[in-house]
Amino acid sequence: MPRLAIDPDRLWSDTLTLAQIGALPAGGCDRLALTEADGAARSLLRYWFEQAGLAVSIDPIGNIFGRREGTEPGLAPVFVGSHIDTQSPGGKFDGVLGVLAGLECLRTLDRAGIATRHPIEVVNWTNEEGARFAPGLMGSAVFTGQLDLATAHASRDPAGISVAQALAQIRQLGDAPMGRPVDSYFELHIEQGDRLQQAGRTIGVVEGSEHNCFADVTCLGDNAHAQATPMGQRRNPLAAAAELITAIEAIGHRNAPVGSMGVASLRLWPNNRINIPHRVVFTYSGTHPDSVAMGAMRREITAAAAEISRRTGIAIEVEASPDRPAVDFDPGLADLVEGIAGEQGFSTMRLRSRAGHDAIRMAPWCPTQMIFIPCKDGISHSEYEDCRQDDAAAGSNVLLHALLARANRAG
Amino acid sequence: MPRLAIDPDRLWSDTLTLAQIGALPAGGCDRLALTEADGAARSLLRYWFEQAGLAVSIDPIGNIFGRREGTEPGLAPVFVGSHIDTQSPGGKFDGVLGVLAGLECLRTLDRAGIATRHPIEVVNWTNEEGARFAPGLMGSAVFTGQLDLATAHASRDPAGISVAQALAQIRQLGDAPMGRPVDSYFELHIEQGDRLQQAGRTIGVVEGSEHNCFADVTCLGDNAHAQATPMGQRRNPLAAAAELITAIEAIGHRNAPVGSMGVASLRLWPNNRINIPHRVVFTYSGTHPDSVAMGAMRREITAAAAEISRRTGIAIEVEASPDRPAVDFDPGLADLVEGIAGEQGFSTMRLRSRAGHDAIRMAPWCPTQMIFIPCKDGISHSEYEDCRQDDAAAGSNVLLHALLARANRAG
Repeated sequence: MPRLAIDPDRLWSDTLTLAQIGALPAGGCDRLALTEADGAARSLLRYWFEQAGLAVSIDPIGNIFGRREGTEPGLAPVFVGSHIDTQSPGGKFDGVLGVLAGLECLRTLDRAGIATRHPIEVVNWTNEEGARFAPGLMGSAVFTGQLDLATAHASRDPAGISVAQALAQIRQLGDAPMGRPVDSYFELHIEQGDRLQQAGRTIGVVEGSEHNCFADVTCLGDNAHAQATPMGQRRNPLAAAAELITAIEAIGHRNAPVGSMGVASLRLWPNNRINIPHRVVFTYSGTHPDSVAMGAMRREITAAAAEISRRTGIAIEVEASPDRPAVDFDPGLADLVEGIAGEQGFSTMRLRSRAGHDAIRMAPWCPTQMIFIPCKDGISHSEYEDCRQDDAAAGSNVLLHALLARANRAG
Repeated sequence: MPRLAIDPDRLWSDTLTLAQIGALPAGGCDRLALTEADGAARSLLRYWFEQAGLAVSIDPIGNIFGRREGTEPGLAPVFVGSHIDTQSPGGKFDGVLGVLAGLECLRTLDRAGIATRHPIEVVNWTNEEGARFAPGLMGSAVFTGQLDLATAHASRDPAGISVAQALAQIRQLGDAPMGRPVDSYFELHIEQGDRLQQAGRTIGVVEGSEHNCFADVTCLGDNAHAQATPMGQRRNPLAAAAELITAIEAIGHRNAPVGSMGVASLRLWPNNRINIPHRVVFTYSGTHPDSVAMGAMRREITAAAAEISRRTGIAIEVEASPDRPAVDFDPGLADLVEGIAGEQGFSTMRLRSRAGHDAIRMAPWCPTQMIFIPCKDGISHSEYEDCRQDDAAAGSNVLLHALLARANRAG
């Protein structure tokens, strides 16, 4: 442990305290963005920010900032943070750890009486998960001008409630300025993969993100009686979708462990056991570090869809969203983090993020760096998501010294 | 055409008029049981019954009866009917034709000044389809004591509205006696299969029903990030469900054209594209005239589920409902219908029903007979469900003379 170190028990206790808001029976959380549970968690976060002496502000997309002033007026703030919304069900650490570690770092500087030249702001980005409102990474995308505020405000959940309505409902519609200059952005996160665990390393130095892809696949058949209609007359789009899902999962497995591809969501109409559906829509998603290999996976899926469509007579339309291309984080900050981790005696590993993170939206805005810690068996977006307290502390101590170095650097 | 014949234009015009209530763009209907649309259709039916001089009554499960008195007091009524609720989407003919043909038969007797010894009642059974409230064949099951009234009243739709509430809402909660003696029951229906069309026959003499089966299949995996989780760590129940659906559809095709087996409905949780589901539930359903072959299909499915479960590590539970066993209709009435059809110059074919019908619930109660007419390409439960006007008229004329023979028989 370095001489200047965070309080690991305080960090752990804060994390487990926040996890009680929207707590699920097996230990996870259900705290979808801008729900009452998210609102309660935000209230608690604001209370903690104020207890720590931070100046709190909220911007028009609901991002919350807790600012510790620097000694030199006019310098841009160093940002540190992540998000406290979760999937449904989600885990206790995904996002939350990055926000609370940032807060604990600022408390640590206070306890040690250390000032910094640059201000440091802890940020909780709104709707990182995208599970209730599309798109995810919403708060960071709006802050950096990559997503229009009005468009984000108009996004509606499945019940028809807009982001603007939900923000107003939980009193999180602020007027703090967006698009401000930011010196740099740091985000600590569980890996959501098992490369650190497999390699037995503690600190992941994240060089950037991998290519991500999504596509909506629509299969169109014809309603018919699900028992009386002769098999030869049936045009069941669910049967075609099932074949294509099997093909997509196989493509994912053939590209593992480097790439991934699979299907997690599906809807069908009318979804009555006695009526063959006329329409099935599902989404595939995948990752790959290499855009050429990603393109090849996509083409394999399209070819499988065409073959199944020809053979079954079911129309299949693959509507691919543009790839979320790989983003590079700041090489200088990667070296900084790697050096600090080494000084503190932690093993490190360079890797790229397969999941989406607000850091991907911040990377074009300012020098950005993520720090990963091991995630049990690579499982997240799950009640069983887990990480070790000493790894959380290790990542937070690396984060602390990276913040300090960056906020106090000369020039 | 026989000397005494229904008015085919009136029957067709009534059918197309009723189809405007809940009309869908491509020509079908969305008139789920006890909705506002079903209520409007019931009002129109009652108006037509009263115009035809029938005495209208409604029982506590909402079955509507239109009674034409007989000449001999105390004789049990001959019933003729079907249902006017539809699937969503559903067609114009499934059910509706049987009710309106019954009505047109009684009008025809009036026009010809023909009295019958037995009363004849046209009946619209409540919730035949079972698409909104489970189980289907509800009205006939309650009338004949095969389903408890309180149980049926307590059945709730996905929005939590009970049958009792829905009946009250559309003012269809009556007090006419149930479980009355019935002389016999006749039901005219489109085939919902293509055996008549394939064979070029006009009148299907229905000997009974085939075995029907349903089972709910639950696949249990684990939530996880749908992109970042390594393929080898994923336990995606949708992938297992897709394989099993493919196996089930293949079993259906191997048993065609005699048997059928397939999957039309599926639900998954949480159904978010970025979160691997923890639970998938789907229903398979099938038909076969032979209970041994049906059992063999079921065992094949269970074996496929066990193999997929072993290979993927996804728990799969197959919860089979009891088979709806084959029911035999009345052989004497089948001979009667066949003879009448032959006298009228129509080609006939003996077959069994693959779909569920209220006649299946009536068969244990009184001598029962169904008459099928050809159904375009075997398609029903679809906006594209279709039949020919001359086939509808042919079936109705056979029905008319069967009713007349039965209601006027000696003894």
